[in-house]
Amino acid sequence: MTVHHFIPSIYYTTFGSHPPALRIADGDTVITTTLDAWGMDFQGRQVMPKGNPQSGPFYIEGAEPGDTLAVHLDHLAPNRRTGFSLTVVAPNVVVPEALSYLPARRQADWRIDPASQTAALASDFPALPAITLPLNPMLGCLGVAPAGGQAISTATSGDYGGNMDYRGFVAGVTVYFPVFVPGALLFMGDGHAVQGDGEVVGTGIETSFEVTFTVHLLKGKSIQRPRGENRDDIFTVGNARPLELGVQLATTDMLIWLYEDYGLDGEAASTLLGMCGHYDVGNIYDPAFTMVCRLSKKYLPKRRESPQ
Amino acid sequence: MTVHHFIPSIYYTTFGSHPPALRIADGDTVITTTLDAWGMDFQGRQVMPKGNPQSGPFYIEGAEPGDTLAVHLDHLAPNRRTGFSLTVVAPNVVVPEALSYLPARRQADWRIDPASQTAALASDFPALPAITLPLNPMLGCLGVAPAGGQAISTATSGDYGGNMDYRGFVAGVTVYFPVFVPGALLFMGDGHAVQGDGEVVGTGIETSFEVTFTVHLLKGKSIQRPRGENRDDIFTVGNARPLELGVQLATTDMLIWLYEDYGLDGEAASTLLGMCGHYDVGNIYDPAFTMVCRLSKKYLPKRRESPQ
Amino acid sequence: MTVHHFIPSIYYTTFGSHPPALRIADGDTVITTTLDAWGMDFQGRQVMPKGNPQSGPFYIEGAEPGDTLAVHLDHLAPNRRTGFSLTVVAPNVVVPEALSYLPARRQADWRIDPASQTAALASDFPALPAITLPLNPMLGCLGVAPAGGQAISTATSGDYGGNMDYRGFVAGVTVYFPVFVPGALLFMGDGHAVQGDGEVVGTGIETSFEVTFTVHLLKGKSIQRPRGENRDDIFTVGNARPLELGVQLATTDMLIWLYEDYGLDGEAASTLLGMCGHYDVGNIYDPAFTMVCRLSKKYLPKRRESPQ
Amino acid sequence: MTVHHFIPSIYYTTFGSHPPALRIADGDTVITTTLDAWGMDFQGRQVMPKGNPQSGPFYIEGAEPGDTLAVHLDHLAPNRRTGFSLTVVAPNVVVPEALSYLPARRQADWRIDPASQTAALASDFPALPAITLPLNPMLGCLGVAPAGGQAISTATSGDYGGNMDYRGFVAGVTVYFPVFVPGALLFMGDGHAVQGDGEVVGTGIETSFEVTFTVHLLKGKSIQRPRGENRDDIFTVGNARPLELGVQLATTDMLIWLYEDYGLDGEAASTLLGMCGHYDVGNIYDPAFTMVCRLSKKYLPKRRESPQ
Repeated sequence: MTVHHFIPSIYYTTFGSHPPALRIADGDTVITTTLDAWGMDFQGRQVMPKGNPQSGPFYIEGAEPGDTLAVHLDHLAPNRRTGFSLTVVAPNVVVPEALSYLPARRQADWRIDPASQTAALASDFPALPAITLPLNPMLGCLGVAPAGGQAISTATSGDYGGNMDYRGFVAGVTVYFPVFVPGALLFMGDGHAVQGDGEVVGTGIETSFEVTFTVHLLKGKSIQRPRGENRDDIFTVGNARPLELGVQLATTDMLIWLYEDYGLDGEAASTLLGMCGHYDVGNIYDPAFTMVCRLSKKYLPKRRESPQ
Repeated sequence: MTVHHFIPSIYYTTFGSHPPALRIADGDTVITTTLDAWGMDFQGRQVMPKGNPQSGPFYIEGAEPGDTLAVHLDHLAPNRRTGFSLTVVAPNVVVPEALSYLPARRQADWRIDPASQTAALASDFPALPAITLPLNPMLGCLGVAPAGGQAISTATSGDYGGNMDYRGFVAGVTVYFPVFVPGALLFMGDGHAVQGDGEVVGTGIETSFEVTFTVHLLKGKSIQRPRGENRDDIFTVGNARPLELGVQLATTDMLIWLYEDYGLDGEAASTLLGMCGHYDVGNIYDPAFTMVCRLSKKYLPKRRESPQ
Repeated sequence: MTVHHFIPSIYYTTFGSHPPALRIADGDTVITTTLDAWGMDFQGRQVMPKGNPQSGPFYIEGAEPGDTLAVHLDHLAPNRRTGFSLTVVAPNVVVPEALSYLPARRQADWRIDPASQTAALASDFPALPAITLPLNPMLGCLGVAPAGGQAISTATSGDYGGNMDYRGFVAGVTVYFPVFVPGALLFMGDGHAVQGDGEVVGTGIETSFEVTFTVHLLKGKSIQRPRGENRDDIFTVGNARPLELGVQLATTDMLIWLYEDYGLDGEAASTLLGMCGHYDVGNIYDPAFTMVCRLSKKYLPKRRESPQ
Repeated sequence: MTVHHFIPSIYYTTFGSHPPALRIADGDTVITTTLDAWGMDFQGRQVMPKGNPQSGPFYIEGAEPGDTLAVHLDHLAPNRRTGFSLTVVAPNVVVPEALSYLPARRQADWRIDPASQTAALASDFPALPAITLPLNPMLGCLGVAPAGGQAISTATSGDYGGNMDYRGFVAGVTVYFPVFVPGALLFMGDGHAVQGDGEVVGTGIETSFEVTFTVHLLKGKSIQRPRGENRDDIFTVGNARPLELGVQLATTDMLIWLYEDYGLDGEAASTLLGMCGHYDVGNIYDPAFTMVCRLSKKYLPKRRESPQ
């Protein structure tokens, strides 16, 4: 149960089988930092080019294909006082006819105030009243190395996680990933101080982060794609285009979870989803979209022991 | 401001230009009843065949194409103590491979208790612990006659509303519809005592309802498709397949609303959506799906007077 | 086997259960005319407003729900010497970024020459060399009244046919429709002298037509949605959004056809489709798209007798 | 203009920046071989595991990001007398309800006869008459290394090409790829002796190939994604999900081609596509689908010189 303090010196813009940045053990905690989506660090210095450079990979000793990696997000916080966002919704989230009355995209600046835990718009938007939003620090990118020797751009996502931009990836959440390669090779980055569903302007309030996380290995526990849980809910994540395929992946995975770990049959699982299930929209901006299926724990029986 | 007590004697399974069941005026309140989705009334009698038979149409005096009809849902409550649901998720919300391990669909029965405001599963589901859910009475179907002399099945939805199955259509909400024909011709039905996002088993807890609603006409106010608001939020509704088109319709309509009635420009509207917007999934089961774009009022400036 | 000469005096812009324009019998032939998509007749007179006004409905004596109606297109020909098209691809067939360099839509005029069986661009397009295209007269709209008392705009399509814009609906083809209402109620219109796949500019070369067709009833033969055949091929038609759903509907219907009428099993039918099948794109412009699955007769065993 | 005879000794299952297998110059011709999709060579030996192992990469001297690589397919032929296919359509091309009456997938064997240029079904399919199909040898996979250090599975496709399964990739065709990395790094494999549109059973008639191709560099010519031409037609290729996005990518690229190299303006290009354009369906089975937009050269003005 070592606590590692790790400052990255190299960052990656693909999720792939890169040389481990740090080797850690089951149960270890890491305190590290992430650059913002455009490659800037806690001092606003351009350390990497644009494109969601990732901290990591963290090699988890003993992780092998077929295991599950649990990543508990202990703490997430912006580590500087500035952020930025883009100012116009992406073309794919409006009807084509709307494009003619949308302005050109600009960058808006935000002041992040850790004392009040808010972000305030610092750019001059004449039509908008002064806006101050509560912080909801989340990781836009989180994932492991994909299967088959692939290296996939941090612009997108898949069964290995990636650029999911789900506002549910906040402190207190445990995220589960399938392990595809020895060591799992965990990456993270693209912190957002605040973000709406869908990341429809193509950004949240982008900033650099300090991240504390703890890993656990579920040896012999096999899952297909990312899952997570917080105090109240369990959720499954479908990364795909179109959104229907995301719905299908996330719903199927939720059913499998309810079967395998909660002992529900098809009717019980379906009935809970049908009457109490939620769908959350992650990214609808990137090449693959993210759809989350979420269910309250309060209606669930006790979960079976995970294998170890 | 008359209050009408209206018990339907005829029901329709299309949204179309049918003969008015009741003529009402701007500001009037109607207390009426709806059958359940399979045509059963408050005594469980089969009054109509299956297929979301609708109460109405209510002809609103003075409503003309180009106006907007505001329907405030004053009160929604099941008017019997039984409901039913289907027990297996629909084939389109899971991956095809999952179909082989899903059982055949059955009907599950529920006991609705108005005193505790709960619904309890009455069928025998061995794998599921006794489940009791808080009621959240909502209208699955709500809409007006479509344009162009069309009559469209209550199985689906469109710019006229219809079978949207959005769990946000509860008491306290005001829903806005474009008026396509003289009198608007308002229909409603398909009450659900409880329902999850997406209506993924093809039903909520289906039951008959007592409904109280009040109409207001916004003369000369033109909208493209359904919108609504409750105490906290405004929302817009895109009824279409695929979900991406629903996202586009709802997001575009939200931008238009923010421009026209809140005086925001494209950057201000985009920024609010990008940082604070929500997407809710209505129906992902019917021929057209329903996607809702929702925004908290707390970040919005005061709304301009609606035209009258 | 009567031959009817029928000049419509009324046209419809919905596929619905309208009063029959002409009653015909199994085996009868009808020689009639259609307006162009914008309501103009053989003399270029505006007879109806825009929007695919249909000739019909033709009531086929003895047709009942559950039967199949076979419509043989004996002859299709423009009955005037002018046509028109729109000049810019629809926004939904290009990426949003392309919209900024597409000009505004205009109407282009064409001269139709029956002697040479060609259409020549009559408008002044500086960048385009003089263009003369061989005629391929086809019906953009063809269908029957839908089920359930529906009346659906001629802007779209469904299992009843409708605005499919498939360039395969030419003379020599037999089209099959499910019968949903007594008399089937056949409609047709929206003739195109020439059209590419997808109708991506929103029109073909639109003109008025003379149409000769012959109907046959397949009593007790039940199909789900439109099918057709010509000398060489059989084909099935999926009208839906998104295109994937069109693919699914058309492919499933082709498999059913190969099972029921050609006696193939699942492996034989799949193998023929996998090695020899074709997909043709009908409309990708309207609310519902049209996808066609087509297979050469040359690899098929003899078709079983149709029921009568 | 060297002719290289190259027998691969190593194969890749990702399109990525792997060490060059052979360095060739602009104008060079290569005669090489490919394994079948499941890794078997011309003697039917299992040389690699399943999954479209690729021959290459071929490093083209002088190719740099921003150039275009032209690959002329001089000759394609199966180099053994056996092939195989799968026997049941993929779940995603039929409606979910159809899955219950589809059998389990098996492998069917084919005899390939170079003398008659046919493939004959060798497995016992009781319901299918003896079937003999004309060969149409095509490459299922063809592409270059993607941008950004990515390595992407040969199961899918993208702007770099990949597993497109387009039956138009036959001898006589020139395929154009954007160059993303120095040397372009060309890969090829997954030969099909015969294949229908869509590869709906998940295979064509899979076999090993002898391939002869010739490369040309178009220095300074920049394209976004694959294109091609044969004697009669030019075509553009959109690799994406859903099919609508494939349509958008291919159509946009065709417009750009018509603008840049044929001097057409938006109206002329749109009119040609609208009246004479074709869409061909490549793969609708893999993670990304393939949609082709095709236009006859006969209506096009003379193409401008390509830059060199």
